[in-house]
Amino acid sequence: MDYSLLKTLCETHAPSGEEHTMKAFLLDYINNHQRNWKVQPKLIYGSELQDCLVLVFGEPRTAVYAHMDSIGFTVRYENQLVPIGGPEAKSGYKLSGKDSLGPIACELDVNDEGQVFYKFGRGIDTGTSLTFECDFRETGEYIQSCYLDNRLGIFNCLKLAETLENGMIIFSCWEEHGGGTVPFLAKLMYEQYKVKQALIADITWVTEGVQHGKGVAISMRDRNVPRQTFIRKIIDIATDSNIPFQLEVEASGSSDGRELQQSPYPIDWCFVGAPEDNVHSPDEKVHKKDIEAMISLYRKLMSAL
Amino acid sequence: MDYSLLKTLCETHAPSGEEHTMKAFLLDYINNHQRNWKVQPKLIYGSELQDCLVLVFGEPRTAVYAHMDSIGFTVRYENQLVPIGGPEAKSGYKLSGKDSLGPIACELDVNDEGQVFYKFGRGIDTGTSLTFECDFRETGEYIQSCYLDNRLGIFNCLKLAETLENGMIIFSCWEEHGGGTVPFLAKLMYEQYKVKQALIADITWVTEGVQHGKGVAISMRDRNVPRQTFIRKIIDIATDSNIPFQLEVEASGSSDGRELQQSPYPIDWCFVGAPEDNVHSPDEKVHKKDIEAMISLYRKLMSAL
Amino acid sequence: MDYSLLKTLCETHAPSGEEHTMKAFLLDYINNHQRNWKVQPKLIYGSELQDCLVLVFGEPRTAVYAHMDSIGFTVRYENQLVPIGGPEAKSGYKLSGKDSLGPIACELDVNDEGQVFYKFGRGIDTGTSLTFECDFRETGEYIQSCYLDNRLGIFNCLKLAETLENGMIIFSCWEEHGGGTVPFLAKLMYEQYKVKQALIADITWVTEGVQHGKGVAISMRDRNVPRQTFIRKIIDIATDSNIPFQLEVEASGSSDGRELQQSPYPIDWCFVGAPEDNVHSPDEKVHKKDIEAMISLYRKLMSAL
Repeated sequence: MDYSLLKTLCETHAPSGEEHTMKAFLLDYINNHQRNWKVQPKLIYGSELQDCLVLVFGEPRTAVYAHMDSIGFTVRYENQLVPIGGPEAKSGYKLSGKDSLGPIACELDVNDEGQVFYKFGRGIDTGTSLTFECDFRETGEYIQSCYLDNRLGIFNCLKLAETLENGMIIFSCWEEHGGGTVPFLAKLMYEQYKVKQALIADITWVTEGVQHGKGVAISMRDRNVPRQTFIRKIIDIATDSNIPFQLEVEASGSSDGRELQQSPYPIDWCFVGAPEDNVHSPDEKVHKKDIEAMISLYRKLMSAL
Repeated sequence: MDYSLLKTLCETHAPSGEEHTMKAFLLDYINNHQRNWKVQPKLIYGSELQDCLVLVFGEPRTAVYAHMDSIGFTVRYENQLVPIGGPEAKSGYKLSGKDSLGPIACELDVNDEGQVFYKFGRGIDTGTSLTFECDFRETGEYIQSCYLDNRLGIFNCLKLAETLENGMIIFSCWEEHGGGTVPFLAKLMYEQYKVKQALIADITWVTEGVQHGKGVAISMRDRNVPRQTFIRKIIDIATDSNIPFQLEVEASGSSDGRELQQSPYPIDWCFVGAPEDNVHSPDEKVHKKDIEAMISLYRKLMSAL
Repeated sequence: MDYSLLKTLCETHAPSGEEHTMKAFLLDYINNHQRNWKVQPKLIYGSELQDCLVLVFGEPRTAVYAHMDSIGFTVRYENQLVPIGGPEAKSGYKLSGKDSLGPIACELDVNDEGQVFYKFGRGIDTGTSLTFECDFRETGEYIQSCYLDNRLGIFNCLKLAETLENGMIIFSCWEEHGGGTVPFLAKLMYEQYKVKQALIADITWVTEGVQHGKGVAISMRDRNVPRQTFIRKIIDIATDSNIPFQLEVEASGSSDGRELQQSPYPIDWCFVGAPEDNVHSPDEKVHKKDIEAMISLYRKLMSAL
């Protein structure tokens, strides 16, 4: 598989609150590529959806959610930083951004009390957002980069789009930091399209039970417990498909699924995604076999559900 | 009072995420008994309500919420367990469930670091849910069992249903673990029935201020502070009724009321329920006088509010 | 500026859950003063809005939110208190309230374990709410009192109302303790008035980056990260206006903005408010220049946005 699109996605600066950059990239990509897709989707976006983007293919029964935002840092006062989402912070990590004086390439510095600062030749404007500088690495077996969470979810959706006949693809915002767009996206999918099934295309953790190269993870629960009858249906489809998958059970961790569960709509959801190492760091690492399994399983689920 | 129905309710396996078992039991019970009720309710259920069940009697002004789910445990990897809700965990507690290999009766094991495991002769499928094995005990004064929280709330509603003329009874899901059905239940009660008053039929704690045998507890606040004008109205009705009750004021604890308060509907709510000892353990204990007071007060409130 | 109205607002007892007292005061004030306002607003209130109050001027494009409730304490059992919101608690603070036996003026007592009690000549009814006794102080430069958070936000709105031509002013409840009215207020502003922009008129903290007398604070983020394109628009308007302002960036703290962000409506929001010292104590202190800057900036933003 060609991963150059994934590299571009990982390099795009779009922390929570500034997803308009990713939306612009996706709109451009879709306009340039959809002529080669099996079905041309209806595109929904604009001020009614803030910076979200929705693609509707044919007669949808299931929606796939992939969040566009990433973790990062906001410049506070002097050389202080406050986190956006839950980034891994280590002295020496490279950060980039842009303020009124121009582009920024600086370094992260963590003191003994865990407070986070930047090191740069000049002061940076208060309120500027910084993200990890992207060092995209591909080997025979692995992809490694910052922001595979969740640029890989977006990549999965764009691959899925090539052959998708019926379904919704929903690019959401703020997943890493407080949420807030899933409520109106759920309203759209349920009230206007009567869609009651959702898959969360996001990235999870390598653990003792979910390992590199063993297949895409189907999460039976995380901090939230989705309706188990729906989960069992997905496991049955995956089992029949012979696509490699792993079952995940965790007490913590969360996703856009949490907001779907709490929305005033009876929407079932399940998290289905590849596992990664070095979560929320510049060195997130995913096995290529798990990426391929993820894409294959999404194709299968969107037709079978 | 005959408590055999309560015993059956306590024995039903329905942890958060698997409430369909309780819904099936209730539908069956209602179909078999409603001919003897004063008013036959309209039943609302189906995919629009996930696993919830709503009964509408006459012209409702007030809704009673009773959650169907219980706390429990999910099997993780190897012999590890993760909690569903906030169960009390002690080595030696008996757990039961079912997986692909058949029925399970195993034992809980807690290590020095507070991690929770099961002890069983074989491995249990990842994702299997386990609940406390039910040991239902009735004495002259007390009922003791796992899951009085909230099978007693359900029992209260089924007793109330026998004579209810106007009102809604709402059986909700996921109260013990993250919520998520109250938002669409609130939408239903408010948009379709214009009902703006809710009572939460759930179980609270015995404390220094709320004691066994002193009557049903009316909670003036817990983690949430409901609108005090509504609370005062309920206290006035209770005072006039001569039914024994106790006022509760707590800084913590929560219920379906929290989600009603946060819903986009102007719904007043009050928690009214019997107090119990040994909360979230296999040995929850409630005084029979408090159960009787709870049922009496619900009958009174549903006609007077 | 004459601050006697602010004094009356600060003296009004309206902790979370009992905002009806503030609503009654505001309705009375508005009825007595709106004849002198440039535009007479439409007033919306009643059981559909619980204890909230909404003023609609002309053709609104932006809504201002000011919460009516304050922090305080609820009497538990014996002489125990539990907090409403997050009040500063120090032994010797004066508290006031009212119960079935009459008015209460008592003293706060904090023990070594941080538990909070009242000292009073008699027992106080369980469930009674107590608030700080108001000691309103005005000097040449400062206003000092309990509850400037958020009576100053209300004061700002009433000053804004005098000249407002197009806009909504929304007085909300429960901001200090769990929220719950913003969801239906957001529904009203969006569904009935198509308003998608909101300003949060509330009080923030003096910090190393936001200081007394340096102007009103525009918060670029707190615990939540609002959409930065909207924040930049506000900063641009403020910059052009020559009204003194300060940029705030915090990792914590929250406001009615949080609930707007999580509502199922695509509403942009920004917190704009004067900074104070001695937050949530009887001695909250705000610089008069910052109050004046706040009112001036609200006038500017409501016409320019």
